[in-house]
Amino acid sequence: MKKLLLAALVLSANVFAADTFDAQTIKVTEQLKEKSLNSELAYDIVARLTTEVGPRMAGTPKDLEAVDWAMKELQRLGFDKVWKEPAKFPAWLRYSESAEIILPSKQPIHITALGNSVSTPKDGTRAPIVIFETLEELEAAPENAAKGKIVFINYRMDRSLDGNSYGPAVQARNRGAVVASQKGAVAFMMRSVSTAKHRFAHTGGNHYKDGIKAIPAVALANPDADQIERLLQLGHKVEVNLNVQAESKGMGTSYNVIGEFTGTEKPNEYVLLGAHLDSWDLGTGALDDGAGVAIITAAAKHISELTKTKRSVRVVLFAAEEQGLWGAKAYVKKHQDELGNIVAAAESDFGADLIYAVESRVASNSLPTVRAIAKHLKDLGVKYDARNNAFGGPDLIPFKDSKVVPIFSLHQDGTDYFDYHHTADDTLDKIDPVKLNQNVAVYAVFAYLAAQSQTKMIGK
Amino acid sequence: MKKLLLAALVLSANVFAADTFDAQTIKVTEQLKEKSLNSELAYDIVARLTTEVGPRMAGTPKDLEAVDWAMKELQRLGFDKVWKEPAKFPAWLRYSESAEIILPSKQPIHITALGNSVSTPKDGTRAPIVIFETLEELEAAPENAAKGKIVFINYRMDRSLDGNSYGPAVQARNRGAVVASQKGAVAFMMRSVSTAKHRFAHTGGNHYKDGIKAIPAVALANPDADQIERLLQLGHKVEVNLNVQAESKGMGTSYNVIGEFTGTEKPNEYVLLGAHLDSWDLGTGALDDGAGVAIITAAAKHISELTKTKRSVRVVLFAAEEQGLWGAKAYVKKHQDELGNIVAAAESDFGADLIYAVESRVASNSLPTVRAIAKHLKDLGVKYDARNNAFGGPDLIPFKDSKVVPIFSLHQDGTDYFDYHHTADDTLDKIDPVKLNQNVAVYAVFAYLAAQSQTKMIGK
Repeated sequence: MKKLLLAALVLSANVFAADTFDAQTIKVTEQLKEKSLNSELAYDIVARLTTEVGPRMAGTPKDLEAVDWAMKELQRLGFDKVWKEPAKFPAWLRYSESAEIILPSKQPIHITALGNSVSTPKDGTRAPIVIFETLEELEAAPENAAKGKIVFINYRMDRSLDGNSYGPAVQARNRGAVVASQKGAVAFMMRSVSTAKHRFAHTGGNHYKDGIKAIPAVALANPDADQIERLLQLGHKVEVNLNVQAESKGMGTSYNVIGEFTGTEKPNEYVLLGAHLDSWDLGTGALDDGAGVAIITAAAKHISELTKTKRSVRVVLFAAEEQGLWGAKAYVKKHQDELGNIVAAAESDFGADLIYAVESRVASNSLPTVRAIAKHLKDLGVKYDARNNAFGGPDLIPFKDSKVVPIFSLHQDGTDYFDYHHTADDTLDKIDPVKLNQNVAVYAVFAYLAAQSQTKMIGK
Repeated sequence: MKKLLLAALVLSANVFAADTFDAQTIKVTEQLKEKSLNSELAYDIVARLTTEVGPRMAGTPKDLEAVDWAMKELQRLGFDKVWKEPAKFPAWLRYSESAEIILPSKQPIHITALGNSVSTPKDGTRAPIVIFETLEELEAAPENAAKGKIVFINYRMDRSLDGNSYGPAVQARNRGAVVASQKGAVAFMMRSVSTAKHRFAHTGGNHYKDGIKAIPAVALANPDADQIERLLQLGHKVEVNLNVQAESKGMGTSYNVIGEFTGTEKPNEYVLLGAHLDSWDLGTGALDDGAGVAIITAAAKHISELTKTKRSVRVVLFAAEEQGLWGAKAYVKKHQDELGNIVAAAESDFGADLIYAVESRVASNSLPTVRAIAKHLKDLGVKYDARNNAFGGPDLIPFKDSKVVPIFSLHQDGTDYFDYHHTADDTLDKIDPVKLNQNVAVYAVFAYLAAQSQTKMIGK
């Protein structure tokens, strides 16, 4: 009777997950969880990267220092191959930034220049504020609605588990300066893309458009945006002086740093684990994306400590993500003809909070393999998200667009992520080592099983 | 039977609180709670003070702007008398401050100059770090232990409900630069007196000693203190460049702003409600001490909206508290001969979280009155703390020292107070209007009943 029941269970398990793994693979999977959850490696990696290198914006000497650091780190950890591949990107440097309310009464406000911002004159740009609640409201305003003024977009980002509230909020950062300039503004400022109450301004990419005058573009800390909003509500005419000194330096070069543990049976086929090595210059890039670097590096290392894999496991630390995914684009371009060798790709670039779901973007005949893998993530607190429409992360966009690469999202809890994102406050103390290790365990199991699966997964 | 029971109850109540209040007074007390808890006045006061004036450090034009603002505000609210009294204080101005780690690799760190700090040379003071865990450890070090170095005291402040962990932590801020200088240091830096994880440095008073060379004194944000600690733990020699530009400007003048609702029966006797009008320059002084200004002002106003009091209720907005209680000292000096007219004094200078206890410092024959008042605070969540050893708050120290004035502590929950204290992050959004109003209700009831009590309380 017992045997019969067991056979029935195995049979039913197979119905839901045809591509099951053998007993040895399952044994290693369990060891991998145990090892990952109890290791100090990931925290040690992110602690040393953010402490010894610290901020590492592409275009600064610190970025190249990070490349050297990462090469040595992957070598130290015993990856079978470690190499780097160049990536070009438009370099921009921040020299200084400050602002003050001049009218109705002087007081300093906390701002940061958005990426690519042009400079103000040496003594700043002083002008009255004109407020818009949204980018759409600014777009709908008449020509010259902001003539001679500083446009202030006051849009408040919502807090959300999956981070989907970032999309609507980031529009103003991407395009606000262009639209403001079209309406005659002398500078652009916005409430930070932020869920925080703290007095940090959040930087991030801002993009100009050929033929439209580039004006200085800055973000305000939330308490300072509140301050200006209240002054306007109290009926004051508000004048601000913004001072940004920054410079675009033409095309710079950075490097994707790559480490591989080579597979024994199908060495050319590989699982790609991605994160980005660069950070913005304000913080030390702990959540964005030192955590990701640490998670995927430790995951690959832990697999190698237990076993050789059939396929290879490749860690790619992308360059110049913050300037516009330049490392990822360079990787896809260079490896265009071999993208089909990637059997699964996942990126860790959303902080260090817990992973709660796994979602794929694969051809339908690869779904049984996805489900078989997902089954082994369940006891780590990871549900299977059956939508099969994974975004994968910013650096995976060029991979996704190829339609060849099986893309995975290991969805992280992003509730607090935008409290720290792109601020000076993105520092190591924001990382919980226990949560970090849950991430390591999930990435390790995911990568290991994708490398061992009987069927090679394909993209869509 | 019913009547008998009631008589017994009244009798027993009188045993515990001989100085009970009459029915009309109790009725007004209840109305006062209702009004205070539902008013928008206190939040409106602190919102406008921190928005329209903003930072208001004594010695800056903003402080005098705050004095004007407060005079007008008390007049607007219909206080019977509004006046100001001068107070001299040693003025100090902060011009700029920055720091970076030079070795092992360049990266910026977040610091703030401590009050009174002397300047570094124009290009900064660059030296290796020598770390001490406590001020005591530095004091115990041999002469020249820090010769040519920057002393770094790494003491971590604990979090506590009553704020008593501030005392041990603040020693290093008060005296660290002197001791460091005695050991040969070229500059002094310390982990902020802070319970926060955020990247704000906390300023505060630092005091030099005649005959001992004054060296630059700064506080580091906690994440930056962590960073230096980790670099040292990793075995690196750490060199830092500190740059502080600041100036002592001799004696300045500010003003205590005073408003009084005059009593009908004993106008010379008064309840003193205190808070300080000045703030540090980094934040907008919302928790420290815009909240206090708003709480006591609104409390007095709400009493006046309901009734005339027997004794006067006087609001004193002290000057230059942060530089060393200069307004409070000036008040006590000026009113030395009439301090006996103060029937109760309480200060609100600990943020805007809930009040959980009331404690007195009065002669023992005044305790029945204290208990009678405390009884009416109970349903506001305020317990009676029978120690009768109230500190009262910083500005009440000179009053307490007189031994004439009955001092009260309306103990606030200080668990989060030192997350924001003396930082740029002390802004309006940190105040919860509901909790603020509980404070207003407690101060209003306290002041009203102290003004009405049959027996005049006396100090000890």
